[in-house]
Amino acid sequence: MSTFSNPLRQIWAEERTAVNGWLAVPSILGVEAMAVAGWDVLTVDMQHGTADYSDLLSLLPVIEKSGAASLVRVPWVDEAAIMRALDAGAMGIIAPMIETVADAERFVSACRYPPEGGRSFGPIRARLALGADYPAVANKEVVTLAMIETKSAVEELDKILAVPGLTGVYIGPADLGAAFGHGPGFDRQEPEMLELIEHIRQTTAAAGLKCCLHCGAAAYAKGAAQRGMNMVTISSDARFIEAGAKAEVSAFRNAGD
Amino acid sequence: MSTFSNPLRQIWAEERTAVNGWLAVPSILGVEAMAVAGWDVLTVDMQHGTADYSDLLSLLPVIEKSGAASLVRVPWVDEAAIMRALDAGAMGIIAPMIETVADAERFVSACRYPPEGGRSFGPIRARLALGADYPAVANKEVVTLAMIETKSAVEELDKILAVPGLTGVYIGPADLGAAFGHGPGFDRQEPEMLELIEHIRQTTAAAGLKCCLHCGAAAYAKGAAQRGMNMVTISSDARFIEAGAKAEVSAFRNAGD
Amino acid sequence: MSTFSNPLRQIWAEERTAVNGWLAVPSILGVEAMAVAGWDVLTVDMQHGTADYSDLLSLLPVIEKSGAASLVRVPWVDEAAIMRALDAGAMGIIAPMIETVADAERFVSACRYPPEGGRSFGPIRARLALGADYPAVANKEVVTLAMIETKSAVEELDKILAVPGLTGVYIGPADLGAAFGHGPGFDRQEPEMLELIEHIRQTTAAAGLKCCLHCGAAAYAKGAAQRGMNMVTISSDARFIEAGAKAEVSAFRNAGD
Amino acid sequence: MSTFSNPLRQIWAEERTAVNGWLAVPSILGVEAMAVAGWDVLTVDMQHGTADYSDLLSLLPVIEKSGAASLVRVPWVDEAAIMRALDAGAMGIIAPMIETVADAERFVSACRYPPEGGRSFGPIRARLALGADYPAVANKEVVTLAMIETKSAVEELDKILAVPGLTGVYIGPADLGAAFGHGPGFDRQEPEMLELIEHIRQTTAAAGLKCCLHCGAAAYAKGAAQRGMNMVTISSDARFIEAGAKAEVSAFRNAGD
Amino acid sequence: MSTFSNPLRQIWAEERTAVNGWLAVPSILGVEAMAVAGWDVLTVDMQHGTADYSDLLSLLPVIEKSGAASLVRVPWVDEAAIMRALDAGAMGIIAPMIETVADAERFVSACRYPPEGGRSFGPIRARLALGADYPAVANKEVVTLAMIETKSAVEELDKILAVPGLTGVYIGPADLGAAFGHGPGFDRQEPEMLELIEHIRQTTAAAGLKCCLHCGAAAYAKGAAQRGMNMVTISSDARFIEAGAKAEVSAFRNAGD
Amino acid sequence: MSTFSNPLRQIWAEERTAVNGWLAVPSILGVEAMAVAGWDVLTVDMQHGTADYSDLLSLLPVIEKSGAASLVRVPWVDEAAIMRALDAGAMGIIAPMIETVADAERFVSACRYPPEGGRSFGPIRARLALGADYPAVANKEVVTLAMIETKSAVEELDKILAVPGLTGVYIGPADLGAAFGHGPGFDRQEPEMLELIEHIRQTTAAAGLKCCLHCGAAAYAKGAAQRGMNMVTISSDARFIEAGAKAEVSAFRNAGD
Repeated sequence: MSTFSNPLRQIWAEERTAVNGWLAVPSILGVEAMAVAGWDVLTVDMQHGTADYSDLLSLLPVIEKSGAASLVRVPWVDEAAIMRALDAGAMGIIAPMIETVADAERFVSACRYPPEGGRSFGPIRARLALGADYPAVANKEVVTLAMIETKSAVEELDKILAVPGLTGVYIGPADLGAAFGHGPGFDRQEPEMLELIEHIRQTTAAAGLKCCLHCGAAAYAKGAAQRGMNMVTISSDARFIEAGAKAEVSAFRNAGD
Repeated sequence: MSTFSNPLRQIWAEERTAVNGWLAVPSILGVEAMAVAGWDVLTVDMQHGTADYSDLLSLLPVIEKSGAASLVRVPWVDEAAIMRALDAGAMGIIAPMIETVADAERFVSACRYPPEGGRSFGPIRARLALGADYPAVANKEVVTLAMIETKSAVEELDKILAVPGLTGVYIGPADLGAAFGHGPGFDRQEPEMLELIEHIRQTTAAAGLKCCLHCGAAAYAKGAAQRGMNMVTISSDARFIEAGAKAEVSAFRNAGD
Repeated sequence: MSTFSNPLRQIWAEERTAVNGWLAVPSILGVEAMAVAGWDVLTVDMQHGTADYSDLLSLLPVIEKSGAASLVRVPWVDEAAIMRALDAGAMGIIAPMIETVADAERFVSACRYPPEGGRSFGPIRARLALGADYPAVANKEVVTLAMIETKSAVEELDKILAVPGLTGVYIGPADLGAAFGHGPGFDRQEPEMLELIEHIRQTTAAAGLKCCLHCGAAAYAKGAAQRGMNMVTISSDARFIEAGAKAEVSAFRNAGD
Repeated sequence: MSTFSNPLRQIWAEERTAVNGWLAVPSILGVEAMAVAGWDVLTVDMQHGTADYSDLLSLLPVIEKSGAASLVRVPWVDEAAIMRALDAGAMGIIAPMIETVADAERFVSACRYPPEGGRSFGPIRARLALGADYPAVANKEVVTLAMIETKSAVEELDKILAVPGLTGVYIGPADLGAAFGHGPGFDRQEPEMLELIEHIRQTTAAAGLKCCLHCGAAAYAKGAAQRGMNMVTISSDARFIEAGAKAEVSAFRNAGD
Repeated sequence: MSTFSNPLRQIWAEERTAVNGWLAVPSILGVEAMAVAGWDVLTVDMQHGTADYSDLLSLLPVIEKSGAASLVRVPWVDEAAIMRALDAGAMGIIAPMIETVADAERFVSACRYPPEGGRSFGPIRARLALGADYPAVANKEVVTLAMIETKSAVEELDKILAVPGLTGVYIGPADLGAAFGHGPGFDRQEPEMLELIEHIRQTTAAAGLKCCLHCGAAAYAKGAAQRGMNMVTISSDARFIEAGAKAEVSAFRNAGD
Repeated sequence: MSTFSNPLRQIWAEERTAVNGWLAVPSILGVEAMAVAGWDVLTVDMQHGTADYSDLLSLLPVIEKSGAASLVRVPWVDEAAIMRALDAGAMGIIAPMIETVADAERFVSACRYPPEGGRSFGPIRARLALGADYPAVANKEVVTLAMIETKSAVEELDKILAVPGLTGVYIGPADLGAAFGHGPGFDRQEPEMLELIEHIRQTTAAAGLKCCLHCGAAAYAKGAAQRGMNMVTISSDARFIEAGAKAEVSAFRNAGD
């Protein structure tokens, strides 16, 4: 493989909604079990998931092999975390808690080589794993998604969307709900939240960028896709374990004797 | 905690069927997600699962904390593997591919301190984690389950069940099915297999020992429990991930547009 | 377990001084060996100890199982480190090198969900391991201790203590001694240091907060407790190894022939 | 990917000599750096290399992604080691120190499902990573190579080659040389050794099986390939580091001032 | 460093008793804390300690750097475990549960290159870390200690001591006590046990081999050294943690208020 | 070992150019294979290499044992990363992307104990591994190298060089080239780049500090040394693997049949 082409950009070029699987469990076997389901994208969550850098390094080959695009949610807007994830081969970054234009600029700069940004050169695994032309194409292939999940981010949305090099936004409904007084939770149904999410989507689309939403259930995600979301995340590996285990234990214990 | 009492033996003392969760994914978070479902027992599978010894060491505290009994399926009838798992704190061992009385004797001997067996002394974590009286009570608390999954084992069943110190048997339907020409698979419905499984269960019960069955679905496990199985395993963490992921991706892709 | 109640807050509710064990060695066996001693609290030191995030994840279940409260000293006042430790299940954070009110505010904000702070939502292991009600009670149960170990911190102490959501302070005598020209070291006896430590304690108590002290020997810690310290740390696992080994080798080599 | 076809068997079907890279360094980055060279096969050496089972699990996806076949040299003819490597996804096994027909039979049995052998069923990662049809095709796709490196093995060669299910032999020139009094070493030039190696190759070919040789330099490997070896191994990652480092340091220090 | 000379053999050449530190905690920091005490030998216990192969690899450099000889107690008389530990750089092996001459022969053979034994060639780290001449001198430098801890071993002692290539024996008082009906424990005082230990020592010395004893306290070890033991082990890192922690917590809690 | 003396400072005291090996592969075996080449310094690259903190901890003993000085390139100018690397025993730090005097001051402060800087006290492994006098001598032995690789750094060079406690600068030709419009790459030959590098070297020398250069080939490094560079890095372990593998595979495939 000598040419790097981000599968997520291909999906978007075809105007499809990407379906994103969420990885909180840093296990090679677990990711293999996720990958066979045919996700378009798999995201390693290093913020609220339990993967550390060494885990990331071992999970990326599994994701790449599946044909899915690989994203990493970094724990914070931190140059070290962002650049190391990209050098390890992540095809894109989801940056949490982007509150200001300055945050967004710092985030994007860490993802782009000069002159577009200030990413330090040394794509140690990315070049070997993604393609020999990685240094030349990284700036246009790597995806940058700013999480919109605070009041400040909503207020500064226009300015954040105007940061050159930003690919789009990723809506975190748990933090966003908490910020607007509705408490954490996925698959929001509160009218204010629905309106807010739609507002973010429309504003993002109007700016020519991609809007992505973290969802719980497939049905909710489908609705979001139909309303124009460019990527939807459904549940997570940890939730599949918990839900599966509870369902089976409950089915066993509650079956009539 | 200074007294070691195996929760699985308590369940059996109450004449209940224990429900066993199966761990193929060696992840702390994954086991926490399993543990909240309320399994009576959680088994770390070191044969066909992907846990290595270091993983075992990190997963046992999670299991213990949940109140479940901890079992380990070792990769083979191997003294080193068995004794290290017990020293690490496993409350019982499932030994695969027991084919002969000699296998069973070697297995049980590795689980019992002299004069009952030849287990070497040094319960390094077991004493600290399970109770100061571990050395004194281990021989009666530790559970030993021999897997019956070959023709030879079925033929020698009576003699295997007569090995002093054996707690019971664990039926592996995949290997057993393959051995009897039905191919691998769980939740067998072939009349010959059903008869065989029932034969093993009755013979074991008649010998005063415990019979356990590896199952796929809760409904099948419930039926097995109703027919007298003393412990039933349902599915596994890896299967919950795979099934959950496939169901959600499929639900998303197949929903009408 | 479905309700999270921080054992350290319970000890303080009973007006007792908590005894804290210090973990620099990221070993499951080592922590088990520490835990049987009956500490009220066990702290994983990620600043000057050698635990990394993956270690933290494997040590917290051992601490929880012992009944002790779990604290983590993070390497720096860093949102990523603080939030990941809390999401992993740490019941409180010790933040080093708090020099200003801004540091303290940033620290506390990272530990408190909105509206009290800016902690991002996703208590991935905390909810599973500590209790289903974790999201609801975390803001009142999680303990936040700011290290007072620089001149600047002493000068700004009143303002630091006034930061809403701060539980108390943790005195680091090594850095504090160095800052005041006495060099590093525990169990300070210099009159200036004794006075300084007592000043911090009284000021903290007057503000209605908790004051904690890092100590070397039990005797010194006892004295500190008698003078009103709310938590005292005694030595560390690494020091127990070093002292034990030196004592035994020395006893052997120096015994008369 | 739903169909498992072993690339090594494809190369042999085309009557080509496979070039095998040898992995002693269990590093994801190191294997990526090896993989870009275009080896037909990459072997994880768990006998004299430093990979443990957890490493194997993390390296196999990297090998698979490169398109190379994956082999594992297990530390010993041990059922647990062999079956776990296969379940992890290894496409073939090199078994060291096969001395007798009994060794060879035990080795092959561990690699073949019933009725051909006694491999226990549970291809936990192999099914997910190599193809859904893995259980059906494993017996014909998995490669089994017995190391011929002792006097006993040479003497019993005919009988070893007659073991059903054996794919071929792998010649270890270091141990073989030591066994025949020539000391360890690769790329043997001693007439007796050359004759011995050719004898093994011809005998193996006459039995319709594959003969493979561990080599040091490409030139020697090329000669072996021209004489009919079916797979040749060249050097190793650790040797590339050592040779590269020594060459550069030496070039620097010996350059004229 | 290009010449490998085993420090333990040097100590014995000077007719001194070696003092051995015991490592059950697989932590780099823990071993550094042990190493500064000045042990002659440090043993990684892979039987009843919690080190796995990957740990061994990381601990050996720490031991070597300290100047101490490195020993490994393998989990069982298993060729794979023994050869991998030696290839990793262990300077000697303690083999548990040697019961028969056959066990002893198999053990020693795994430690010696042909023609003295059947160790497979490939000292991957040993050559790099211990000296370029390792292959040439390993057979005379590597130490082989058979554990005498069962009735059978005591009965066959003369024959075991006659196995060529055996360096000596290592007495395990816990298993030996259990075997002779006195229960496990160190620092035996029972007349029968004292007599038995002295009998083993004298028989071993008469055969010209080394006799080593696992001890708890320095005082007991000193007595054993004075009676002629060639190596004495004192306590362990895990015991230092447990004892240190209990002493400090107890001192704190029991100090008068 | 009770006295810490940095071997790199000794080399500079002898007015020699140090030869630095670069470690991107976090493998104990890989570092042993590097170390036998006789480098003066070995640097663990935590920015563009794949070592994480746990790897660092396991690699430092290997470096120390070889007699080489140990440096760590941290991922960013981050107090936590710098102090943890030093506490782990790194003998010096290379800090990337120093753009301003403020960056340089913050970097050096993190490396120096008060009153020279703000490094927090707790040299947990450094004291054990490097010498009991570490706390007393660290400020003068630890080496601090600021990377000059941006336009801003070149412009502020004089001021950066004036920061008290800075040992010298480390030129990163890839980022520097990118910053000045020549694209990434080592061993620059562009006249502007050669002039720029020489300018940095002369300015640094004039300030009485050390100038170091990251190189690809030994020949280029030799030239740089002859022109006065105080330390030159040559290639890396990952490059040795890639180059070695490609050369051998190519030699095999291209050899005439």
